Parts: sequence; structure tokens; C-alpha cells
Amino acid sequence: MRLRKKPWADAEIEASPHIVVPNPTELKGKWHQFFKNNNPIHIELGTGKGQFITGMAQAHPHINYIGMELQTSVIAMALKKAKEVKAPNLCLLNQNALQLPDFFEPEELERIYVNFSDPWPKTRHAKRRLTHQVFLDIYLELLGEGNEIHMKTDNEGLFEFSLNSFSDFGCRLKNITLNLHESDMEGNIMTEYEEKFSSQGMKIYRCEAVLPAQK
Amino acid sequence: MRLRKKPWADAEIEASPHIVVPNPTELKGKWHQFFKNNNPIHIELGTGKGQFITGMAQAHPHINYIGMELQTSVIAMALKKAKEVKAPNLCLLNQNALQLPDFFEPEELERIYVNFSDPWPKTRHAKRRLTHQVFLDIYLELLGEGNEIHMKTDNEGLFEFSLNSFSDFGCRLKNITLNLHESDMEGNIMTEYEEKFSSQGMKIYRCEAVLPAQK
Ligand SMILES: C[S@@+](CC[C@H](N)C(=O)[O-])C[C@H]1O[C@@H](n2cnc3c(N)ncnc32)[C@H](O)[C@@H]1O
Ligand SMILES: C[S@@+](CC[C@H](N)C(=O)[O-])C[C@H]1O[C@@H](n2cnc3c(N)ncnc32)[C@H](O)[C@@H]1O
Repeated sequence: MRLRKKPWADAEIEASPHIVVPNPTELKGKWHQFFKNNNPIHIELGTGKGQFITGMAQAHPHINYIGMELQTSVIAMALKKAKEVKAPNLCLLNQNALQLPDFFEPEELERIYVNFSDPWPKTRHAKRRLTHQVFLDIYLELLGEGNEIHMKTDNEGLFEFSLNSFSDFGCRLKNITLNLHESDMEGNIMTEYEEKFSSQGMKIYRCEAVLPAQK
Repeated sequence: MRLRKKPWADAEIEASPHIVVPNPTELKGKWHQFFKNNNPIHIELGTGKGQFITGMAQAHPHINYIGMELQTSVIAMALKKAKEVKAPNLCLLNQNALQLPDFFEPEELERIYVNFSDPWPKTRHAKRRLTHQVFLDIYLELLGEGNEIHMKTDNEGLFEFSLNSFSDFGCRLKNITLNLHESDMEGNIMTEYEEKFSSQGMKIYRCEAVLPAQK
């Protein structure tokens, strides 16, 4: 996702530290204090413009949601949506998913969402895919056994890679669908990419992966 | 697969009892004697006209292959191919897969192939799908833990159902591909249906399911 530089983005983000948390390393191990409750914490990696995570936060008030997005100009759009919905169970991080272990203690999170993440189609870039074993190792540490990664994508190659990657890692796969919008899944909240691709008639793939015991 | 009744079919089959085994119940527990070796036995359910199983038998002389097909007029075509290749490691059964336990002792088989099996798209017919739990229970008994079911299909709904069915059953999934003919799988032998569908540009799905421990 490429957006033009938004000069106002930095200023907006700095003016909303209660939504776009500026110092996540300081909150490591203290996220439940931050949210002022003991509800489970779910995080979306590569949140983009934030439609999914704000929708989820509204639909599930007893879950805490964190949207993580690398690009400042993109997360600024998510911030706009978050301000509109005013959900106390939602915050955003303008950070790189690779840095997750700097921000969270082991088992501090309960679920990870990966929606329409960059496919990195070249084999030599496989390690950058958010469902590569490099990332699954991190997710397992931060979520612990039995917790889940939920993914959606329009990309056949990435989905195929991810199913095998999850399976090879020892995850149990659940609720696999090869055509989400023809399936009977209830409560699906669409992301921006999902809206765009499905309106073009493209199929959306989805699955859930249950993490195995620590290795 | 519907073919016109072939009056010559019965006669041809009866004349080739060394290929289309007429009395499989009598061979229960004795298939290695039948093949005169201790090589693993792989079976294909719904063999159709036999291109896959005859091709496999030629490509892998140290595996014994059995092709099982319900329809007499269809297996007659497979018999024709089997006569041409004269493979000592191949036989056919004109039988219903539901009857597998009548023909084989527990763990007498090592692998099951299910290629382009009937999708039975209506939910109330789900139990007839060859990857339904009803069948997986049978397969587990006849193959044992760690052995594999390999499936191919052009049918998105059946593939989705099967991935979930395998996974829910406790199978580990391997080598999932959402587009077999664009993948780097080596040694693929095409079935009749596969040739037809892939030449029409349709995608072919494939996966391998490793059976869990007995329940
Ligand atoms: C293709 S977009 C999809 C956005 C959104 N999930 C959707 O479905 O509409 C992928 C997003 O992931 C972000 N991203 C990629 N790698 C990331 C990483 N390592 N950490 C955080 N965000 C990342 C990109 O900046 C981009 O906004
Ligand atoms: C769609 S055709 C596919 C044939 C072949 N595997 C191919 O890919 O070209 C399915 C075949 O499975 C056979 N079949 C269906 N149910 C069966 C069962 N319970 N036992 C044995 N054969 C069966 C049908 O008669 C039919 O020939």
C-alpha cells in the first residue's frame, strides 16, 4: 500500500498518543494496565487504513484490539477512523511487526490477525511473508499454545504458502475457506483490500491456525 | 462418470481374474502373498478409466497398486489399459470403497489415493464424500498412524471440505497446492479427469494428509 506523504500525518499522530501509542516498549508486560481490564488482547499486523480493526473493536467490546502498521501515512488514515468510533478497547502502533518481542511479554497476546499482507512472491523474499516460520516463532512466543492466527488474503500463492507453513509448524488448521464470500462464515468484517478485491469478483481465502505447544 | 452399458465388459472382466480380482474377501490379510512380495500396497478409490493407477504402477515397480472402481463399464476401460502395460504390481477391484474393511486387514495398506472423487455438493450427502470422517475412520484402521491419503480434485468445494475434514480428524496436512499445474511438484501422473479439466484451464487442487494416532 503506497500513499503520498501526508505532512499532517506526523502532527495528527503526535496529537493522539492515547490512540497511536508512542512508546510501546515501555508498555511491555503492562498492556492490561493500559487497557484497564483483563480482557484478551488481539492484534492485527499490517492494519492498513484500519477498517477491520475499528470494526472489530466496535463489534467485540470485551476484547482489546491493537492495530500495527508500518507506514505513517497509512496509519494516519486508521487514526481518523479510530477517532470517529471512540472505542476504549482500541489502540494503534506505528511499528514494524518484526519488533513485536520488544513490545509484548510472552503470552501477553491472545490472537493475531494477518489480513491481505504483502505476498512477497519471489522465493528469496519468502522470509518477509508474515506467515513465514520466522514470524510463527515470534507469534508462538507471544501467544502460547492453543491460541490462534487468523488470516485472510486474495493471493493464491500466499495462501498456499501459509497453509503449508502453518501445517509444517505443527499448527492445527481450522475453518479453511477458499471462497469466503460464498461461505457461511458469520460476523466477517471486511478490510479495505477485501472490499476492493471482492467487489472485483476475486475470491477471498481465509483460515485459522491453532498454535502447537512450545518447541 | 457415466458410460453406456458395455455388454462385453462382464465377459472381459471374468476372463481376466489375475487383473480384476473376483474374490477380494478371500484375500483379506493375504495381499502380500497375492503380490508375491512385501512391498507397500497403495490403493486408489474411484480409479475410473485407470490412467493414474497404470501410470503409477509403471513408474513405481516396487509399490503394489490396487485400483478400486464401482462401475463395471468404467473398470472395463481400466482393465484394457492394465492389459496393455502388463504390470505385475497392479490389480483392480470392481467394488465399493465402503466395503474396504471386508477386503483388507488393519494396516494392510500403506497409502490411499482419492482423485477427482464425486463432490456430492449437497450438505445432506456430505457423508458420501470419500474424505468425510466416515471414510477417514476406515482409512485410519486400514493404514495406521503416519501413513498418508493423497487427494487431487478440480472441485473447490470438495477441496475446502476435505482440508477441514482432514484437519479436524487430526491429520497433518502436507504439500497443499491450489494450482497443481503451476506448482513444482515432480512425478505427477495425470488422471483422465485431470487431463480434461486442466486442458480447459481449470485449476487442480492437491494435498497430502498424514494420519494421526488411532483414537
Ligand atoms: C496490502 S496492505 C493491506 C492492508 C489491510 N490489512 C487491508 O486488508 O486492507 C498491507 C499493509 O501491511 C503493512 N505492513 C507490511 N509489512 C509490515 C510489517 N512488517 N509491520 C507492520 N505493517 C506492515 C503495509 O504497510 C501495508 O499497509
Ligand atoms: C469423477 S470420476 C473420477 C475418475 C478418475 N479418478 C479420474 O480422475 O479420472 C469418480 C469415479 O469414482 C467412482 N466411485 C464413486 N464412488 C465410489 C465408491 N464408493 N467406490 C468405488 N468407486 C467409486 C465412480 O464410479 C467414478 O468412476
